[in-house]
Amino acid sequence: MKIRELIKTFQPYKVLEGDYKIWLDKNENPFDLPPEIKEEIFEELRKTPFNRYPHITSMPLREAIAEFYGVSPKNVAVGNGGDELLSYLIKLFDGDYIVTTPPTFAMYYFYAKLNGIPVVEVPLNERFIMNGDEIAEKSQKASIVFITSPNNPTGNTQPREEILKVLDTGAPVVIDEAYAEFSEKSYIDLLDEYENLIILRTFSKAFSLAGVRAGYLLASEEIVDALYRIKSPFSLNVLTMITAKVMLNHYDLVMERVNYIIKERERIYQEFKEYAYPSEANFLLMKLDAYEFLLERGIVVRKLDGRLQGHIRVTIGKKEENDELIKVLKEFVENVADI
Amino acid sequence: MKIRELIKTFQPYKVLEGDYKIWLDKNENPFDLPPEIKEEIFEELRKTPFNRYPHITSMPLREAIAEFYGVSPKNVAVGNGGDELLSYLIKLFDGDYIVTTPPTFAMYYFYAKLNGIPVVEVPLNERFIMNGDEIAEKSQKASIVFITSPNNPTGNTQPREEILKVLDTGAPVVIDEAYAEFSEKSYIDLLDEYENLIILRTFSKAFSLAGVRAGYLLASEEIVDALYRIKSPFSLNVLTMITAKVMLNHYDLVMERVNYIIKERERIYQEFKEYAYPSEANFLLMKLDAYEFLLERGIVVRKLDGRLQGHIRVTIGKKEENDELIKVLKEFVENVADI
Repeated sequence: MKIRELIKTFQPYKVLEGDYKIWLDKNENPFDLPPEIKEEIFEELRKTPFNRYPHITSMPLREAIAEFYGVSPKNVAVGNGGDELLSYLIKLFDGDYIVTTPPTFAMYYFYAKLNGIPVVEVPLNERFIMNGDEIAEKSQKASIVFITSPNNPTGNTQPREEILKVLDTGAPVVIDEAYAEFSEKSYIDLLDEYENLIILRTFSKAFSLAGVRAGYLLASEEIVDALYRIKSPFSLNVLTMITAKVMLNHYDLVMERVNYIIKERERIYQEFKEYAYPSEANFLLMKLDAYEFLLERGIVVRKLDGRLQGHIRVTIGKKEENDELIKVLKEFVENVADI
Repeated sequence: MKIRELIKTFQPYKVLEGDYKIWLDKNENPFDLPPEIKEEIFEELRKTPFNRYPHITSMPLREAIAEFYGVSPKNVAVGNGGDELLSYLIKLFDGDYIVTTPPTFAMYYFYAKLNGIPVVEVPLNERFIMNGDEIAEKSQKASIVFITSPNNPTGNTQPREEILKVLDTGAPVVIDEAYAEFSEKSYIDLLDEYENLIILRTFSKAFSLAGVRAGYLLASEEIVDALYRIKSPFSLNVLTMITAKVMLNHYDLVMERVNYIIKERERIYQEFKEYAYPSEANFLLMKLDAYEFLLERGIVVRKLDGRLQGHIRVTIGKKEENDELIKVLKEFVENVADI
């Protein structure tokens, strides 16, 4: 018995656990579902057999999402979180490598490495904007291009004209819109025009369902059909499907909370605009090396590295959590930061 | 944009849908959870935040399973169904191919093909017993060996002495015990002795949780550690983890139902022992080409092919479902079957 060398090059997950009072590290929604919506879910689950396999390609949830967007279920795929969909997208198309635009979401790299697929990087510029021309050039031999808008961990969206340059090459392009509900910009409208476009979305952020694990994508029938040929059967369980469906019916509440979070985001941004980058997501990137300082005071944020060494990514929390964050960060800026 | 040729060789899933009254095709448990256990689950879910990510390596459920078996959580991995665990196990070890023992579970082939891993087959004999010597020989260059006991779709368990021959080679061996609760035989005790043994189990069958998707494995720390390095983070959602945990506390009910199913299995077997193979699972393999005949009468079973052409696999249902099955199958045997 010999574990493959490749496997050993992956690091075990590190989990920060402990009695911290404010968790602003995972871009979660700070609000759980209200009790009455949980009861609505339970009412559905009372009628749902737990002993029978879920639909093999998750049709009930795909139909609900299709109806929400006014498309066909054949244009919708759902996954056990967006991650599961990424793990398949990376294998679907012919090509020599994938293209990413760092600094960006780490999971594109994770699945590329696991599948032995090389990564070609076209870094974002100093304002974290993509270089459409260069990506387009690299797209010729790429199996797939990953663009994140709003980008994680920088918070900005990408300009339409740059995205069009890449889409026009005909290469498969994922626009990962995990945070799009917190932005005014989405590229869903481009699906009508581009068969090579895949819009990736999630219930984990705006919809408050990080614990429930449901992601989805919108794309051409050809892409969705290909994905379901290699997707593990029955991968979405009935509890997750029902919960996500119920939340689609409460989009008004979702958007109410989104607006609260946007308002709070702008409040924090105004307080620290010397250090924070403008954001269209539910987090702020800040050029403040305050990870340990905050942690010692019970506030957990994400510490960044590489090109973003010395930066933190701060999820927008509830008002009282943000008040505490602002208070502690001000203390850091005034007394500690070497600015 | 060009879909990879490999992807096109996978067939889209076919789903039989329709208004059939008796479903005996997926080896599901015929009993849903009783209402009071669902309420127990809902009570836990009321206290559980849906908006926060689940534990990154599913520790709460791993701890519960570890306690159930009296092992360490470091010896337990959980997956979004057993399938997810198979998709990782197939990638963990050095070797030239995997070994399977047909006729057996199709998903070993699915994941091998998807990952470009060759499959070496060592067929079961005419009584569906494995050939330990030949498998041991083939194991030398194998990355992993899959043994299913009780085997699906034949229902029989594999003999200890044959399994030991394979384990003694030191090659990684999965014993897929998805149906072990319906049998008197399990090889969990061998875990103490063999670091290369992986016991795969599921909540989908005996525990009535096919819709909830939870599988697990017991293995050495080295194997579990390697698996979690490449496993998608957060892959088990909080709803599934809580449901599985609650069911572990109702093992008495699980076993009561298992005994009911075993009794029903033996009743059906006695009626058709000319055509049925002895089974230690929740299904029976029958040498009866009765798929269409049953379907026309509203009973769905699994039609087999290849070496088992002309056979059906029949899941054990509730007493009244089994009564109907027996009635219709008798009609088939007496009037239709060309025996």
